[in-house]
Amino acid sequence: MKLTVVSPLISDDFTEGVRKEVEHWLGPDTDVEVVRIQRGPASIESEYDEALAGPGILEEVVKAAEGGAEAVFITCFGDPAVHAAREVVDVPVVGGFEPAVLHALALGEHVGIVTVLPNVVPMIRSLIRRYGFTDRVGSVRVVDMPVLTLHDPDTLLTRLHEQAKAAVDADEAQVIVLGCTGMIGVAASLQERLAAEGTFIPVIDPTGAALLWLESQVRLGVRPSRATYLPPPAKKRIP
Amino acid sequence: MKLTVVSPLISDDFTEGVRKEVEHWLGPDTDVEVVRIQRGPASIESEYDEALAGPGILEEVVKAAEGGAEAVFITCFGDPAVHAAREVVDVPVVGGFEPAVLHALALGEHVGIVTVLPNVVPMIRSLIRRYGFTDRVGSVRVVDMPVLTLHDPDTLLTRLHEQAKAAVDADEAQVIVLGCTGMIGVAASLQERLAAEGTFIPVIDPTGAALLWLESQVRLGVRPSRATYLPPPAKKRIP
Amino acid sequence: MKLTVVSPLISDDFTEGVRKEVEHWLGPDTDVEVVRIQRGPASIESEYDEALAGPGILEEVVKAAEGGAEAVFITCFGDPAVHAAREVVDVPVVGGFEPAVLHALALGEHVGIVTVLPNVVPMIRSLIRRYGFTDRVGSVRVVDMPVLTLHDPDTLLTRLHEQAKAAVDADEAQVIVLGCTGMIGVAASLQERLAAEGTFIPVIDPTGAALLWLESQVRLGVRPSRATYLPPPAKKRIP
Amino acid sequence: MKLTVVSPLISDDFTEGVRKEVEHWLGPDTDVEVVRIQRGPASIESEYDEALAGPGILEEVVKAAEGGAEAVFITCFGDPAVHAAREVVDVPVVGGFEPAVLHALALGEHVGIVTVLPNVVPMIRSLIRRYGFTDRVGSVRVVDMPVLTLHDPDTLLTRLHEQAKAAVDADEAQVIVLGCTGMIGVAASLQERLAAEGTFIPVIDPTGAALLWLESQVRLGVRPSRATYLPPPAKKRIP
Amino acid sequence: MKLTVVSPLISDDFTEGVRKEVEHWLGPDTDVEVVRIQRGPASIESEYDEALAGPGILEEVVKAAEGGAEAVFITCFGDPAVHAAREVVDVPVVGGFEPAVLHALALGEHVGIVTVLPNVVPMIRSLIRRYGFTDRVGSVRVVDMPVLTLHDPDTLLTRLHEQAKAAVDADEAQVIVLGCTGMIGVAASLQERLAAEGTFIPVIDPTGAALLWLESQVRLGVRPSRATYLPPPAKKRIP
Amino acid sequence: MKLTVVSPLISDDFTEGVRKEVEHWLGPDTDVEVVRIQRGPASIESEYDEALAGPGILEEVVKAAEGGAEAVFITCFGDPAVHAAREVVDVPVVGGFEPAVLHALALGEHVGIVTVLPNVVPMIRSLIRRYGFTDRVGSVRVVDMPVLTLHDPDTLLTRLHEQAKAAVDADEAQVIVLGCTGMIGVAASLQERLAAEGTFIPVIDPTGAALLWLESQVRLGVRPSRATYLPPPAKKRIP
Repeated sequence: MKLTVVSPLISDDFTEGVRKEVEHWLGPDTDVEVVRIQRGPASIESEYDEALAGPGILEEVVKAAEGGAEAVFITCFGDPAVHAAREVVDVPVVGGFEPAVLHALALGEHVGIVTVLPNVVPMIRSLIRRYGFTDRVGSVRVVDMPVLTLHDPDTLLTRLHEQAKAAVDADEAQVIVLGCTGMIGVAASLQERLAAEGTFIPVIDPTGAALLWLESQVRLGVRPSRATYLPPPAKKRIP
Repeated sequence: MKLTVVSPLISDDFTEGVRKEVEHWLGPDTDVEVVRIQRGPASIESEYDEALAGPGILEEVVKAAEGGAEAVFITCFGDPAVHAAREVVDVPVVGGFEPAVLHALALGEHVGIVTVLPNVVPMIRSLIRRYGFTDRVGSVRVVDMPVLTLHDPDTLLTRLHEQAKAAVDADEAQVIVLGCTGMIGVAASLQERLAAEGTFIPVIDPTGAALLWLESQVRLGVRPSRATYLPPPAKKRIP
Repeated sequence: MKLTVVSPLISDDFTEGVRKEVEHWLGPDTDVEVVRIQRGPASIESEYDEALAGPGILEEVVKAAEGGAEAVFITCFGDPAVHAAREVVDVPVVGGFEPAVLHALALGEHVGIVTVLPNVVPMIRSLIRRYGFTDRVGSVRVVDMPVLTLHDPDTLLTRLHEQAKAAVDADEAQVIVLGCTGMIGVAASLQERLAAEGTFIPVIDPTGAALLWLESQVRLGVRPSRATYLPPPAKKRIP
Repeated sequence: MKLTVVSPLISDDFTEGVRKEVEHWLGPDTDVEVVRIQRGPASIESEYDEALAGPGILEEVVKAAEGGAEAVFITCFGDPAVHAAREVVDVPVVGGFEPAVLHALALGEHVGIVTVLPNVVPMIRSLIRRYGFTDRVGSVRVVDMPVLTLHDPDTLLTRLHEQAKAAVDADEAQVIVLGCTGMIGVAASLQERLAAEGTFIPVIDPTGAALLWLESQVRLGVRPSRATYLPPPAKKRIP
Repeated sequence: MKLTVVSPLISDDFTEGVRKEVEHWLGPDTDVEVVRIQRGPASIESEYDEALAGPGILEEVVKAAEGGAEAVFITCFGDPAVHAAREVVDVPVVGGFEPAVLHALALGEHVGIVTVLPNVVPMIRSLIRRYGFTDRVGSVRVVDMPVLTLHDPDTLLTRLHEQAKAAVDADEAQVIVLGCTGMIGVAASLQERLAAEGTFIPVIDPTGAALLWLESQVRLGVRPSRATYLPPPAKKRIP
Repeated sequence: MKLTVVSPLISDDFTEGVRKEVEHWLGPDTDVEVVRIQRGPASIESEYDEALAGPGILEEVVKAAEGGAEAVFITCFGDPAVHAAREVVDVPVVGGFEPAVLHALALGEHVGIVTVLPNVVPMIRSLIRRYGFTDRVGSVRVVDMPVLTLHDPDTLLTRLHEQAKAAVDADEAQVIVLGCTGMIGVAASLQERLAAEGTFIPVIDPTGAALLWLESQVRLGVRPSRATYLPPPAKKRIP
């Protein structure tokens, strides 16, 4: 199976981190390529950043499909350009939010998300409403760390634990989703730390969830519906 | 009052049509400027087109605010880049969907939208869920005409009437919203034609609704909340 | 444009206050008449008061329409007799709740209402459900001051600020609506006081919102749908 | 047990019919008094009629409670003044809608209402939203007969059967509620006629449902919550 | 009228307590039989216990109907096997949850449930969603006492009061439902204790609510819809 | 990885069919065991059948976990005893409904289910509400074939195609889920047949979806939350 991961950021550093993480999740039969956009933001922390990254993401998704990718992961929790991408290619495409939350929904009653900054909370709540998940997903908390500081795993883990615990204690959530695909390699540790306090709380890593989701879609032989994602009519478009 | 209208299309023709339409709605005290994006699609008929138009729209919105605009109308029913724009400027910004539907909600129980093509129906239904209006807005129908053919008012009016009447007769809607800001100058005629059949059904023109909405916001002294639309953190961004 | 404001109270004092407030919001081209009911309560602070005021309100609305009013504002946040009035006249009619909340919905994700007494909170929450706004409007708080004591602007402003701040700090709301049309002349000051603490939070004055809403409806050439508001069948009625 | 039935109509004829019907449902231990309002409409077929009946209904409810009534039924499907009445008396009060629909909810998945005229359909749908029942109650159909013609049981039964059958066949509803308390003495026949076609469909008579509901409330020792229905503050009120 | 109460527990002690309680609620004309299952759990405190009790409950319900019971009450707040039972008999069947909550919905805006252990809270919240009551029923609290310790009325009452008061004070609920049919004989005392603090809060006893509900259904001449509860096709089944 | 499939039926024939189907979906590294219950129904076509199968399913799930299974699939679309099972074992457990519908939600806007008989439609709609998916899953249609006749693939495929096409044409659904785990080996053919008519509509096979779902859960290192699924308290239980 051939998968492409599109990083919606202009930084090569992040691309490198993603490459390592991706290999952790996939089997030996899956061939992954990680690419990044050429124009756009250094990180996504607002709807503004999402909009700037849009055209670049779509360019890379189309290139990937033309190059034979059987599935594409746009590695950002805000699902930027995901629905647009489904209109223009004939393979499964997901972002970080949708597969992580769908996985979480089968693990407990209420799903809580812990993300980076207050800036993206309204965007995430808009996604929850857009996808129709308000009955089951309500709690959105923040570690209050910009994306570009997430490489410090100790601080990140401490703050994730604080917020996850608070959400569970207040009975806001019984399952935790990490709300940023830049929170790499901490899900298992957080899950362990929470369990050590007495109650097993599953923690979903959005990168792992997305990659296994795409593998499943390919193995199930499905891809997005053309009755929801119609091909855009031909017309003049200036890139 | 100084207003800017941003057309998310690369065509000067449409910009001209908008300019005339806009003058029809505003009073002599309001000074309007109509601008268009430089890169993007010739028309918006998909989430793909919306994403391509995003960076250009934001560039024009920022320029407008810097140039003293007191409010900005992004003239597209899909509300492209509207929420992103609210993050980066300190003046009211609306697209076509939100003010038209909000106006309609005070006129009858259920609101029906008649738009251009099947391609944009899922996008519009996503907006309905995102804004939380599913209890009151359900019917989305199409005239099945591409945006660039809307300049034929007779065909447009005939098909709008067909679809609006069908929505009302099936009790899907008691108020009609025109679901494309390119449907210019037909709302009043459609309203008249429907009334001639015995029951007054209000028809909302999204351009008029948006412009009067912005005038009201300015006169009320309000603008988008900074607790929902936080300013994007400073960072490297390649345009 | 000719507008009528109907005060659902039997007090001339309040009518005077309304008259001054109304002139503050409207342009020189709009001609306003303020009238009051002859039978009913001294203030509206319960569903009981609303019901008592109903017949008097309808009498005044009908008289206004017969006298040439192009739009009618029933100046009470509980929207008393608003839907009944739309059945019997052919011009736009609004109360205080609907236009204020609709305006607020375009300014931020969640709308919070600060009203007078605990007595009216269930009535307001019933309106929120009736209008289908539960996904976006949840917080209803009180200053705990009877309507007839609202003329003390300092106490009112202090308590409004306390409650609005509490709603924003608890992330219940990012936009504030004043939940009583008797809270006159304080919206701008409250907005300023909240902004002075660091984050701009828009505050909607229900009187201003209603008047500009009606102006917009008249300029858009619309009025309530006769498919929702059917004319009541003729029959014997003892006033 | 002492019950009062308040007819919100100015006609003695209807009061007589109600008296007979009421006796059919109650046991020998229950003492019923049927009263009517002095000012208001001859029938309720609009929100306008409801508003006109309001003060008269409240006057009778208060009088009944003062006279020792242990529960009050306001015999109209629109639940006029029901919530206002609960604020001013200390005994259970219901209208026609609430107990009929609550009874029906325990009998099948979706509840369908068949009422008199298109005029009251939006009012009934507003009640459904107000009470929060939209997930289970959706279908509202009409026999298209004014209230004052309902005394013709053959036509009424034929049309009720037509509409109930249509609702069941379209899978809109599996339980039927008669949507007017003036549809007297036909529920059992309709239920029989539907069952004769092969599938048992329960039919709820709103008068019977309301009376047994009140009996149950009294026997359970409960009455409306004073945390929802606060007593209206004392003030000047001109009747 | 002949009613059967099915206890889904294997203990004779509980059956005895139920018998006494049941007689408290019903009139002299109603003849009640209390039976219990032969295989299953000693108490129901999980979905696991519910599933174990299922076949035994259904056996007793069928036996009761064959023996002439006109209505059946499965005395457990989790409504175990209730919907299955409605498929196989032609008489009204209820559990503890549905009639208690439906009764409560007519007494105030928001209903709060106080149940036994945290273990059953997700099950109760699943029922709330299944029945479509999320807009009106949200608060589920626990006294943290296993079912088999409920016979200590003092501790039970103290803890119920604590939790009910907390729900009311936090404005989570204005009506209280006892969330276990094993909480026998305390509803009236709890209601009194709450009222003594100043505000009347109705408290629903699920056993009383269920019994009176069934009496009403029988008197109204209705039973569950065969369009929702279809008879199971004949086939091999090993008990 | 070691997986157990529990068939909630007493028939060895069905167990054989499941075994073949299961091998089709899983990789060579996954070791599957298929077991069946000893007491219960020959097929599940009602809530009654579900309840009868409950204790047997739980017995097999517990045995499987004790025997080292890392995940368990209860192969029935009604998710019988799934939530109960999660309370008693420490490994992922799913039925047919949940993973199929969650997979489908990422493939298009609205999900339609085509199941066997009208008898199970209310049960499936109850699951939709219980899981909180009403905004996205609405259409439930039937091929009107009992489970034990599904072995005729031609008739089954013809009727599935009829119903799936009807759902898509009526715009009820853009993604199809097969609503019975006994519909084996037809999903791909149905998907092909629908695509041949011009529009690609994904079709989800519930068995494949469930197995890949469990594989993903195991690879992600997660299992159901103990804050939702608490271990049942110890007590006397008669099997």
